[in-house]
Amino acid sequence: MQAITESYIKRIHTDHPAEELQDQIITEAPLEILIGYTHAGARLRAPVAATMRTPGDDLNLVAGWLFAEGIIHGKDDLLNVRFTDNTDTVLAELHPSVVYDPEIHQRQFPISSACGWCGRYAGRGEQAQILPKNLTIPKELIYRLPEVLRSGQGLFSATGGAHAAALVDEQGQLVLRCEDVGRHNAMDKLIGAMLQQKKLPLHRHIVVFSGRFGYELAQKALVAGIQIACSIGAPSSAAIELAEAYGMTVCGFVRNEVYNIYSSPERLQ
Amino acid sequence: MQAITESYIKRIHTDHPAEELQDQIITEAPLEILIGYTHAGARLRAPVAATMRTPGDDLNLVAGWLFAEGIIHGKDDLLNVRFTDNTDTVLAELHPSVVYDPEIHQRQFPISSACGWCGRYAGRGEQAQILPKNLTIPKELIYRLPEVLRSGQGLFSATGGAHAAALVDEQGQLVLRCEDVGRHNAMDKLIGAMLQQKKLPLHRHIVVFSGRFGYELAQKALVAGIQIACSIGAPSSAAIELAEAYGMTVCGFVRNEVYNIYSSPERLQ
Repeated sequence: MQAITESYIKRIHTDHPAEELQDQIITEAPLEILIGYTHAGARLRAPVAATMRTPGDDLNLVAGWLFAEGIIHGKDDLLNVRFTDNTDTVLAELHPSVVYDPEIHQRQFPISSACGWCGRYAGRGEQAQILPKNLTIPKELIYRLPEVLRSGQGLFSATGGAHAAALVDEQGQLVLRCEDVGRHNAMDKLIGAMLQQKKLPLHRHIVVFSGRFGYELAQKALVAGIQIACSIGAPSSAAIELAEAYGMTVCGFVRNEVYNIYSSPERLQ
Repeated sequence: MQAITESYIKRIHTDHPAEELQDQIITEAPLEILIGYTHAGARLRAPVAATMRTPGDDLNLVAGWLFAEGIIHGKDDLLNVRFTDNTDTVLAELHPSVVYDPEIHQRQFPISSACGWCGRYAGRGEQAQILPKNLTIPKELIYRLPEVLRSGQGLFSATGGAHAAALVDEQGQLVLRCEDVGRHNAMDKLIGAMLQQKKLPLHRHIVVFSGRFGYELAQKALVAGIQIACSIGAPSSAAIELAEAYGMTVCGFVRNEVYNIYSSPERLQ
């Protein structure tokens, strides 16, 4: 399946007659995640989650999600991640040393929120650690982030319907950018790619998000060891509280050479 | 808890020195949902979901969520919905005639997506019905929706971090508008309020969303019987496919007197 779906649409204007044209739509399609694990000496397989996502980088998406969930703690915990019989199902084979219990890892009380899955709100802090304070950057570097983020947002340019997450180094250079219809998926793809390259924790990187910055994104950034998180949109109260608790710098509304710092401003000199 | 959280921030500009100021942040906080139900003659209580949401309209949020999930089918199925010992836990008491089984209703495979909870992707269409085609409106009415949506977005104006969903009648007049950090929550609050007023199905109303239009919002609109759904942002492929299957009109990118129609254009004359 492609990340872009072609569709015939009708466009209505005030000044001209309606037009019929072919348009590009962001693809949203289900992905099922299966886990292969060892229990009492036997090798087992169980479904663990299903998500709507934009196809592309699916293996990184799964790796990053497993990491954010605390099911794996590094690349060595993941023997293999691959598509099964179709491109909408991914199997992640855990190393036999990884303890995995479907009862514990399947969340009990999910519910919708554009801020993510929060069934385990209370428990999610466990994997996070207080961040070091060994990264400082010039405060002007933040001004460049919207341009760095936008310059290659291919899916967004084509469809207007994609979120992006980008990693930038301390010189302000783009390291990696990922896109998805869901902003949490874009972040999982980013972290998954870095995990596969054994580059976690990301203590020397800055992350920037195209949209808003909620609790779930803050949690994912924190677990990956990111010290500075920036968003083009607004942060939420829960994201700021979590960032304050673990010493993460949060910048929001980064636009037109103005931005706000919500926590740990000392990293921006 | 308030919908707006006051916070001290630092604002960085190119031209002036940094300012310290008090800012208004959108509140994101957990809400737990408990269900009271009857099983084998006994009255039981069970937690069913937890969500991050912006406090306010919580009882409508729960009523709308129960409806979208197919746990209740109208106001008569809901004996009572109220806060328990605190304002972050809501108890929904189901009528004894409502069959509720925690094993079935707790979803097995949740995962994050800004497009919502999709653990039951395959099963969610069950509650939806093919829509009637008895609502037609002038195509120019759609141009007015962004203004109708924005004119009273109090939380968005204050924080820049809220999504909104609004119901408009066939004359283009605002009926109800709800806001939340999560766009699915805003829709649940809207539908919940109309359910409590016994106004479902919403066959004579148009819904308009501040953001993008994904699968989950399409499903919620469909179950509520809405014939015309509009968004300021982009629709996703899955939202359009669902709309086409059930005959819902979808308009997207409604801005500056231009918009696109993605399905069932015959309702716009």
